[in-house]
Parts: sequence; C-alpha cells; structure tokens
Amino acid sequence: MNNKLRNDADEIIRACLNAVLPDNAVVRALGSLKRTEGKIVLVAAGKAAWQMANAAVNELGRVDDGIVVTKYEHVMGEIPGVACYEAGHPVPDENSFIAASKALELVGSLTEKDTVLFLLSGGGSALFEKPLVPGEELQDITRQLLACGADIVEMNTIRKRLSAVKGGKFARACAPANVFSIVLSDILGDPLDMIASGPAYPDSSTCEEAMSIVKKYNLELSDRAMELLHQETPKELDNVTTQINGSVRELCAAAAFKCREMGYTPILLTDQLSCEAREAGRFMGSIIRAHAAEGQKAAWIAGGETVVHLTGKGLGGRNQELALAAAPAIAGISGAAVFSVGSDGTDGPTDAAGGYVDGDTLEALSEKELSVSEVLAQNDAYHALKAVDGLIITGPTGTNVNDVAVALFSE
Amino acid sequence: MNNKLRNDADEIIRACLNAVLPDNAVVRALGSLKRTEGKIVLVAAGKAAWQMANAAVNELGRVDDGIVVTKYEHVMGEIPGVACYEAGHPVPDENSFIAASKALELVGSLTEKDTVLFLLSGGGSALFEKPLVPGEELQDITRQLLACGADIVEMNTIRKRLSAVKGGKFARACAPANVFSIVLSDILGDPLDMIASGPAYPDSSTCEEAMSIVKKYNLELSDRAMELLHQETPKELDNVTTQINGSVRELCAAAAFKCREMGYTPILLTDQLSCEAREAGRFMGSIIRAHAAEGQKAAWIAGGETVVHLTGKGLGGRNQELALAAAPAIAGISGAAVFSVGSDGTDGPTDAAGGYVDGDTLEALSEKELSVSEVLAQNDAYHALKAVDGLIITGPTGTNVNDVAVALFSE
Repeated sequence: MNNKLRNDADEIIRACLNAVLPDNAVVRALGSLKRTEGKIVLVAAGKAAWQMANAAVNELGRVDDGIVVTKYEHVMGEIPGVACYEAGHPVPDENSFIAASKALELVGSLTEKDTVLFLLSGGGSALFEKPLVPGEELQDITRQLLACGADIVEMNTIRKRLSAVKGGKFARACAPANVFSIVLSDILGDPLDMIASGPAYPDSSTCEEAMSIVKKYNLELSDRAMELLHQETPKELDNVTTQINGSVRELCAAAAFKCREMGYTPILLTDQLSCEAREAGRFMGSIIRAHAAEGQKAAWIAGGETVVHLTGKGLGGRNQELALAAAPAIAGISGAAVFSVGSDGTDGPTDAAGGYVDGDTLEALSEKELSVSEVLAQNDAYHALKAVDGLIITGPTGTNVNDVAVALFSE
Repeated sequence: MNNKLRNDADEIIRACLNAVLPDNAVVRALGSLKRTEGKIVLVAAGKAAWQMANAAVNELGRVDDGIVVTKYEHVMGEIPGVACYEAGHPVPDENSFIAASKALELVGSLTEKDTVLFLLSGGGSALFEKPLVPGEELQDITRQLLACGADIVEMNTIRKRLSAVKGGKFARACAPANVFSIVLSDILGDPLDMIASGPAYPDSSTCEEAMSIVKKYNLELSDRAMELLHQETPKELDNVTTQINGSVRELCAAAAFKCREMGYTPILLTDQLSCEAREAGRFMGSIIRAHAAEGQKAAWIAGGETVVHLTGKGLGGRNQELALAAAPAIAGISGAAVFSVGSDGTDGPTDAAGGYVDGDTLEALSEKELSVSEVLAQNDAYHALKAVDGLIITGPTGTNVNDVAVALFSE
C-alpha cells in the first residue's frame, strides 16, 4: 500500500464527512435566525433530528418551545425546552402520529413575528406523520397501491392528500409564522417535495392526478378518503425559507475543497452518480489510468449512490465494491488510488464506511490468492479489502447524504 | 430531438472518424520517409493493410517493391509495385504463410541505406504468419493451450517462438535495413508487443517462461518445437522506428479538437474505458446532468471499448446500449446529449455505428411505449433508437480503433 496516498485519502474523507455532519450543517445555516425578535419554535423530524436540534439549541442559546421526533434509540439526551419523541421507521407508528399532532399544536397559535425552525432529515416521511384517515385504512391503501404496481410518484400523490403534514401542509399550518426550514438531503438531486414528503414545500401534484390514479388502479376507498383526495395541497408557500444542507453536492464540494488545499486539481465528475457500483469503479479506474502519464496531481470526484446486485453471499457494500473493482485498472500505477465512502459511515451490512485501493492493491490481493472478479461475483469485497488493509472505518456519522468516490493521482 | 445538438454530434463524429482513417493516419506519419535515398520496400499486414498501402504509395509516389496481406475480399484494386494477397482470419491459412515468406524474401537482401515501410493493423497476427513447425502441429499446440486454460500471455509466449515473424523476428530479418513501422492500434493502451503479436517490436517474454508453461500444462511437443522454445526472441531492435497511429487516443484527441473548435470545452475522461456499456452510459449521463446547471458548453469524452452482457435476443451493440442507457439521466435537460460510436462504423451485428440520445429522447421513447430498462433487458437498443431517430449510421470505415463516447452540454 502507498502510505502517503492512503493518508491523503483519509484526510480527504475526514474533511468531507465533517462538512456534512448535521451539527455543522445546522450551525452554518442558522446565521440569519439569531437576530429574530419573535418566538422560535423548533420542530425537528428525521433520523438526524436529535443531532440537528441539539446543535441548533446550542447555537441559538434558546428556543421558546420545541419537539424532536426521530428513530428509536436516536435520542441522545435532553435538550432544554424541547420534547423528544422516538417513533417508527420505516413504518410510522402511534408515536409518529402523536409527535406530528403535538407539532401542529405548537405551531397553531404563532404570529407573523414568530419563526418555526423546521429541521428535516431522511426518514421524516415515516417519523413525522398525522394521517387524516384511520391508521388501518392508510395501511390498506398503501397495500393496494403496492399490489397494483403504482410508482413512487403515484404513491405520494395519494398519500400527501391523506396526511395533515405532508405535501406542504405542515408549513401551511404554521402560517402566519415564518418557517425556516433546514433540510439535510439524502435524495439525489435534492427534490424538496420528496424529502420526507415535503412538509414545508409546495406540492406539484393535483387532485385530478389523484383521481386518475384511483381510476387507473381501481382503488377501493372510503368516502372520507375520497373527500380528502379532492382537497388541493398548497401550490405556493410564501412563509417558507428553505436551506438545503449536508447534501451530496456539499459532500463533493468539501472533498474538492480539501483536495485543492492538498495540491490536487479537483474535477467534479458528478454529484448524481447512480449506476452499478463496480462499473463506476472500473470507469473511475480507467480515468486515472488514462491521466497518470500526465503526471499532474489530480482528484476526480463523483458523488451519488451506486447500486449493487447481489449474486453471492459474501460481505460488502457499494462503496467497497466500487473501490475494489477499480484495483485492476490502476494496478502498477504507483501514484494512483481510488476510494469511496458512505457519508453515514456504514457501507452495506458492515462496520466499514467504504474501501480504498491503490496501484499496489491488485498485487497484494494476488499474494493472498484473491481475484477481484471472483470476490465481486461473491459480493465479498469486505473480506478482500480487509486482507489488504483497504477498509475505511469511520464509525456511524449520524448523517446520510449519499456517498463520495474519489480517483486520486499523485506524482 | 434537438436538431442543433444532433448536428453538432454528427459533425464531431465525422471529424474524429476521419482523423483515424488508415489513409489519413498513414499520410500524417510518412513525412520523414519521403526524403530517404535508399530503397523503400513496403510490407503491409492486417485488416486495413490494403488501404494503408494504397495511401502510402499515393503519398510517396513510388515504392521499390512491396507486399500486402489482408482479409479475403479486402483488396480493393491494384497498387503499383505491390503484390496483394488475401489470407485467412482469424485462423491463418496457407496464403498467410505464403505472404509472410514472400515478405521475408523481399527484405532479406536490403542494405542499411534501405527502409522497410511496415504497415500493421488489427488481424495481422493471423494474416501475417510463417510457422517454424508444420501447420498441423501449430494447430495442435494451440488446441492444447486452449484446452488447459492458458491465458493470452502464455499463448503468445509459446507462439512467438514457433513463428518466423512474431515477437520482433520480422524486424530482425529486415536488418541491416531500417524498419519504419506505422501501427494502426486496435488494442486499448497500445501494447506494441500484442498488436499482431509484435513482428517489429522487442519481445519481453523469455525461454525460461516458455519452458515453465510447458511444464505447468504438461504440453506434448515435438523435438523441433522444444528446440524452438529454447531460442530467444529479440530483446532489442535498434533498426526500428514505430509510429502508432489511429489509436483510440487519437480518436479521442480528434473529438476533443473538434469540440473545442465548435465552442465546447472538452474534458477527456479516459481513453481506456472498459466497463459495462450501459453503466458507462449512466455514468456519463449523470456527469452531464450534474453540470447542466453551470450552463457552460462542455464535452466529456471517453474512449475505449465497453462490454455488453447478453440477456435478451434483441438487436444492438455496445455503443447503442451506452447511448440509450444515458437517456433517463439527461431526460428533460434541453442542452444535453450523449452519443457513442464505433470507429469501424459497425456496432454489434447492426448497420449502425452507434447511438445518440438527448434530453428529448426519453419522452420520445415513452410516446412509442418503449421503456429503457425493458429495451436493455432485451439487448434491443437498435430498434428503440431507430424508433426515435437515434441511430448513427456511417457505413464501414475500414479501420478499428475502438469507440468514442461523448457527453455534450450546450447552453
């Protein structure tokens, strides 16, 4: 292994993961809010809700009231002035409903001088929900939609109308108070109406579309549900300011910034990578291989979320497969490395966040009698990388803004 | 379809295919040879041999003697002063042996003032061969090597020693004359010892390696063959000048040059792409999608040779699959296009050279009730692209230096 390159990789990984930690993302976004004169009510929902809320209260010094709803075992302690709830994910449960109801109560009596600080992260769709039909009916409708093969857009068009908070309705309930929404994005391209089903974002779907979905799939609905499907969602929300933070774009930008600081010319390939992990690795390996002869320090950066198709029973994850698959392309090139890391610090069902390979890796693998193609056929990148010190271990980071892969060339 | 983008794509394709045509590649390379005072003997072998030889003789005005050996039906007419042969490919036949013997005769009596103009292209390994053991024995040894799973390096280590021309031996036979070798490369990374088994390139394999292969696989060999395996191949050839032309690197460079001329900032990703075609397409689509917001005219270029795994019974090729797979990623982006083209002008078993998609393609496909994922599962990119005017048709170009794919963004 090239220790200098590995150290560079670790430094880049630390810098970009740090940049998207919920705490840092929230603190950066809060600047303007400190000067408000009215009340501040905090509502935080999602897997990173507790961390975001904790950071916000620390930074602001106080909030006038607040509620956190996150996954079970994700509340890490008390936050002054804030009630913390844990609820069901990915399937909402009674606690999701209670928390959303409490939140609606908190924001119901605010004036136009007041602000709702709304902190949203992945998982919010299940954790923060108040259905307008009985829970069993909602489950039945979801089951019908799944059974007839409805796509995610169709599902959301229906479900937003059956919810008191989704599809911009939470923000409408906050009016006349202002909503300052900080979103930690975990969906490629940051579609604000998709993240947690967009409680504070105008909804673009229409009642007409909802009805044509009902017809298309012959859905069986109660009168109450049919009535709700005819109620339009907010198309404009002039009381909302949204700041997207800790997105994969920010992850890539932070990687690029660190690379430049270290003397590598950064080239951002994409922040919307979504192809097969191992093929992305081969592509990135071939990029470095082609540019190695130029002898310039360079870093090619790709963010996003690749996929893995399981064909074997080994252990691994998409970042580990991406890195491992790049090893043959860069074999023997002493200044070349490819690494990939998941911003949540866990890649697949492993204790690693991702993988690292360099020009020496293929030989090291072959000394252990490991063949890249066989390892990938078994989806066993974890053990292969472990054998050559190619695992990247960070521990859980408490956030999830997709992955970043870097192909590095040093002289 | 975005007609302006499509026109730009066609212009780029024309320019870069033109740059790697055997004729143009040879003419560019010949500059220094025109001033030689000695004899010029032309030896051309490979699929593009006739075209290369014809261009050379036209450019030089004359050669003192010459021989062409190419595939059946590839001789297009007489060339003054040059004998043209057609021979077996991919399996050498008697004509391959006759042509190589004649070539050895032609170059056997030259002086150090003379020059052998050696024009090499893909397929030369079979077309230009003189075995030092009987033909049946060579076939038997090849069969043994294949049966025991020998790799290509092992095969070549053995076969170079059983040939009078491979592994640098043709150039050694030309001494003391100089060899001016123009190579039209069709192997990624241009490994000169691999192209046509390197008749004019020093061989790096050793007798020791050859013997260990014999032992490893328990090969059954005649005494004559064993004797040949103990004869070392040339390790240095100081009478050879080699110019690689029409390589995929040149293909990419020509595409980049044309793009710049047309106002696109070219970024060369790689000239050694070798991953799954459709995943390369997705990757390139995600690159353009991520950069579209910048609004800069840019062209991301990747050369190489992707692979396709057949799962269906449709019609298509790797370039068509690459392009089609990019359609979803760039859907709705009005200035985005991805296209890919094979430099030989034929992609898979089709009459198309490749495929073109842009921001309008996905919608056009869906109007024809075609889904990209279903089409790819059937490997039927040809019919899908045909339905939306996305085929690139150039006709056979007479050369093969891999493929070039371009992701284009115009304002």
